Amino acid sequence: MKKNSEATIVSPIQDFLEELHRKCAGDTGGKVATYIPELAKADPGLFGICLVTANGAVYEVGDTQHEFTIQSISKPFVYGLALEDNGREETLQRVGVEPTGDAFNSISLDPETGRPRNPMINAGAIATAGLIAGKSPASRFKRILETFSLYAGRELSVDKTVYLSESETGHRNRAIGHMLRNFDKLTGDPAPTTEIYFQQCSISVTCRDLGVMAATLANRGVNPLTGKQALRGEYVESVLSVMGTCGMYDYAGEWLYTVGIPAKSGVAGGVLAVLPGQIGIGVFSPRLDAHGNSVRGIQVCKELSRALDLHIYNRPVLGKSTIRLQFSGAEFNSSRIRTAEESQMLRELAKAIKVYQLQGHLAFASTEPIVSEILEQAEGAQYFILDLKRVLSLNESAGHLLHSLVGKLSEAGITVLFTHCDHLSLLRRMMKKKFAGQFAELFAVFANNDLALEWCEERLLDHTRTIHASSYKAKLADYQLFKDFTEVEVDTVESLLKTKSFKRGQNIISAGDDAREVFFIIRGTVSVFLPGEERHRLATFSPGMAFGEMAFLDGAPRSANIVADSDVECHQLAMEDFQLLGRTHPAIKIKMLERLCLDLTAKLRKANRELNVFE
Amino acid sequence: MKKNSEATIVSPIQDFLEELHRKCAGDTGGKVATYIPELAKADPGLFGICLVTANGAVYEVGDTQHEFTIQSISKPFVYGLALEDNGREETLQRVGVEPTGDAFNSISLDPETGRPRNPMINAGAIATAGLIAGKSPASRFKRILETFSLYAGRELSVDKTVYLSESETGHRNRAIGHMLRNFDKLTGDPAPTTEIYFQQCSISVTCRDLGVMAATLANRGVNPLTGKQALRGEYVESVLSVMGTCGMYDYAGEWLYTVGIPAKSGVAGGVLAVLPGQIGIGVFSPRLDAHGNSVRGIQVCKELSRALDLHIYNRPVLGKSTIRLQFSGAEFNSSRIRTAEESQMLRELAKAIKVYQLQGHLAFASTEPIVSEILEQAEGAQYFILDLKRVLSLNESAGHLLHSLVGKLSEAGITVLFTHCDHLSLLRRMMKKKFAGQFAELFAVFANNDLALEWCEERLLDHTRTIHASSYKAKLADYQLFKDFTEVEVDTVESLLKTKSFKRGQNIISAGDDAREVFFIIRGTVSVFLPGEERHRLATFSPGMAFGEMAFLDGAPRSANIVADSDVECHQLAMEDFQLLGRTHPAIKIKMLERLCLDLTAKLRKANRELNVFE
Repeated sequence: MKKNSEATIVSPIQDFLEELHRKCAGDTGGKVATYIPELAKADPGLFGICLVTANGAVYEVGDTQHEFTIQSISKPFVYGLALEDNGREETLQRVGVEPTGDAFNSISLDPETGRPRNPMINAGAIATAGLIAGKSPASRFKRILETFSLYAGRELSVDKTVYLSESETGHRNRAIGHMLRNFDKLTGDPAPTTEIYFQQCSISVTCRDLGVMAATLANRGVNPLTGKQALRGEYVESVLSVMGTCGMYDYAGEWLYTVGIPAKSGVAGGVLAVLPGQIGIGVFSPRLDAHGNSVRGIQVCKELSRALDLHIYNRPVLGKSTIRLQFSGAEFNSSRIRTAEESQMLRELAKAIKVYQLQGHLAFASTEPIVSEILEQAEGAQYFILDLKRVLSLNESAGHLLHSLVGKLSEAGITVLFTHCDHLSLLRRMMKKKFAGQFAELFAVFANNDLALEWCEERLLDHTRTIHASSYKAKLADYQLFKDFTEVEVDTVESLLKTKSFKRGQNIISAGDDAREVFFIIRGTVSVFLPGEERHRLATFSPGMAFGEMAFLDGAPRSANIVADSDVECHQLAMEDFQLLGRTHPAIKIKMLERLCLDLTAKLRKANRELNVFE
Repeated sequence: MKKNSEATIVSPIQDFLEELHRKCAGDTGGKVATYIPELAKADPGLFGICLVTANGAVYEVGDTQHEFTIQSISKPFVYGLALEDNGREETLQRVGVEPTGDAFNSISLDPETGRPRNPMINAGAIATAGLIAGKSPASRFKRILETFSLYAGRELSVDKTVYLSESETGHRNRAIGHMLRNFDKLTGDPAPTTEIYFQQCSISVTCRDLGVMAATLANRGVNPLTGKQALRGEYVESVLSVMGTCGMYDYAGEWLYTVGIPAKSGVAGGVLAVLPGQIGIGVFSPRLDAHGNSVRGIQVCKELSRALDLHIYNRPVLGKSTIRLQFSGAEFNSSRIRTAEESQMLRELAKAIKVYQLQGHLAFASTEPIVSEILEQAEGAQYFILDLKRVLSLNESAGHLLHSLVGKLSEAGITVLFTHCDHLSLLRRMMKKKFAGQFAELFAVFANNDLALEWCEERLLDHTRTIHASSYKAKLADYQLFKDFTEVEVDTVESLLKTKSFKRGQNIISAGDDAREVFFIIRGTVSVFLPGEERHRLATFSPGMAFGEMAFLDGAPRSANIVADSDVECHQLAMEDFQLLGRTHPAIKIKMLERLCLDLTAKLRKANRELNVFE
């Protein structure tokens, strides 16, 4: 809750929850649980709703800070810990996952194996508590409490009064414990495990805690508020599966049908529901229906599901939503400045470079359209650049598909280049493992699209070139600015120039400096960077090209740093000398200005073309 | 299957399915169904796998064209039709949705109500068949067959031999029919309905058909290959819910736990599984396990789920993935060309314009982060432009949130503008209904961001202006190009100019023309469009500005159309006269060229800034 929030606009989601709370508060049906005396003391009017997104946005209304005991809502969380301790196979040996259609306290052991049908009925939950590792009953329960605290994002504790009340009256559960021992589904004395079960049910939580715990499951086991992992991501699907089929007792089928969100209720009046990847819901209202579920809890979940369209099976079609943008190298060049001839060549040749910006979560069904699209575009392509900057996650099946794609395209003579993939370490690991000795050759990674584009362009231009940039020395008459100048004109300009050398890595121009000269490169290349963004090159210039003319023309301070990529030799033309030229040789100055206009026009046309790619 | 595909690269998904087929073909466990004589004749070696994406990409391997009878896989599809005919409430009165944990042919009527527990057991399926509307049994079955054909995308028919065999031996099902009649869950003579049930089970399909039918459910009821609707979208979640909890008989809990995809099997060896929004799976292999499910069918689904990570509860976190790009009006201007002063002002003022490009599917959980983000950014904002071009769908709950957001921001004096929302008719309908009389005022819609940006910029600049563009007449000395020219210089240039008028809507420049002059606007405004893209304006120029100078400078043909937005008066400077000026008054020409360079430099800097927004 923000303080001093008068100026803040209240979220429409908060408004919606408040209206829902008012609406459901009118329902006073159902009865507070009485099967243990302590529960019967609950104030039946209490009512809280808390909705927490998988990103950690919390919306709450009503009695969300009131503490009550978690009861059966503890079952899925202990089951998750049992999976971590024992693995899926071993856990399945002890407890099944079939819905029973029976009530919560049914004993429901399989008549042949003695295996409880599922971990959401008491028998299954007690068998599950028996699966928690630890040296002593105390240390086993301590691990449960610590895990629950991770889910809730705060230190939880046991309500001792309720625990003693549960323990005193828990004969049916003790009977179940002995039945389980009889079928060897518990080892050793069943009593300590039954006590652990009583304790886990007596952990004290608030409605807000339930919302955060649900959101932790929605967020693949990571508490979205603390960032701490409460459950390994791989087991989330199993916990939600048992909640989905068995979480609401003999009401599970209709629950899934009408609400469509895996959920768990407890007899103290809590309901917890999880829409994986999206939101967690906690509701608290102590009056229960005949199934033992909170009346308002059910009503709130039904309304939320209907109003917010949360049914797990009601999903939009993925489509090609993972392809953010597609363009060819002819539409968008690297920031290496090219001669007019090279630019012209690239406008045809670079059609063989296809760039795909991908986005979102790459799983099988979202990667399939990318693979199909690339295979369709493979004819005539020489390079595919896959930009993964906006890919939020990549799972193994997407990794497999991309690996196979790279291998197949490579066999067809097509190179795949990846950019911005540092955050997807799984991709690198999979490529390394699968390509083995060919890894370095086949998994081409570039820091950004610009460098990848330049690499492809260089290869496309290579066979058309007769000179090599690094050793090439431009003569003044070769400069684009002076092309078809007469010898006399060239000599006139040359007399105004000074020659200057720079060492590799040296700053030639620094952002903020006054612009006093324009540069012409004789030898070497220079690159342009914004200050503080040294990894993102704005442009690279080669011999024969001019740079620094923009600030020279408009008199603004230098806007970027220009750094020597190699040892560089330049001509410099000072602003005073250029002004002087207008008076001594106006025709030459006019010619130079016309050339500069021409050059700026070409750059502006290119920038406009490139902007068009993003429209 | 493509012909002449030697040059085509085979998709890695096809490779994967072929490997999976080889692997599972080795499993010869299980037995062909014998409960009706015709089924016992099936070739036990047949085996096909078909995977169809919700976008309609089809991958198939093995015996995918072999026909067999659909059997129990008909149940969810008939249930969908019953929902369309009777609605959810009425259908629930006749057939429940609770899993039984019993075998497929159990009678399982609720002892009190006589209501079959769910529509996937035979009793429920027969009651469901009784819910199909039609004047006669023949017309009722015809509707079922037509619906199935829509799902499959081809005309299906009944295997008469199997049907007769079913009908001859179907005494248990006839008994169920009479039991249902006894409890009034069927009306009239139960015999015709039982016959409809025998017929629906005897519809002949291929493995490929199952894949397409599954993909139709995955695609919200629309066949992705034909585009035709087989089931109303709102009922898809209900059909998948009963498949999810009851589709695999007494194996449903373990199925959801390990495979995690709603599915249905048939005793002829078919298995159909649906991952909503993503993919449909069809498998065919006649050998069955003790539960009556295809052995290889189950194995294939398990392997697919594991390898492709398809478990419905294993979902990535949505996050802010619906915000594609965010920038302010100061970073990216409308294409209305501004004077230097106005540009300078907008670089500060236009920070109050916030543009959000949204993308993907807008549902509650994907819209919540947008609403949060906008509310966080509301301080200091005057305009929010929401670009919905790349929004693939918007559901009611997202519509509600956006409606509330607009209303709340409006109360705080902030305007929300929507662009590119023609394809989201639900949004318009909801806004119209909810805003009622204030609709036109509060739901501001623009064709594109450029027009919306311009509208906001105009309002921000309005109070700083003393002159009004439409009536304003520029004098030559006011032109940016001639600012601080001496009177003599202005007169010299003026003597070279011709004045020309254009009517509103007239083409001033046509793409492809030779560039022979540069224009200076005296009165009115002109806009630039690419030929054939008349809705997407590239720029708008006002009095005092020059246009057409780029082609004039570089001699290229005109690249765009320039159209008079209003009646327009212009000065024209012909290329010959400009060349002449260099000889007669070189100092003036130098000054003009320097100004042109300055103008081009400013435009290039702006284009580069804007390109930076997209990086």
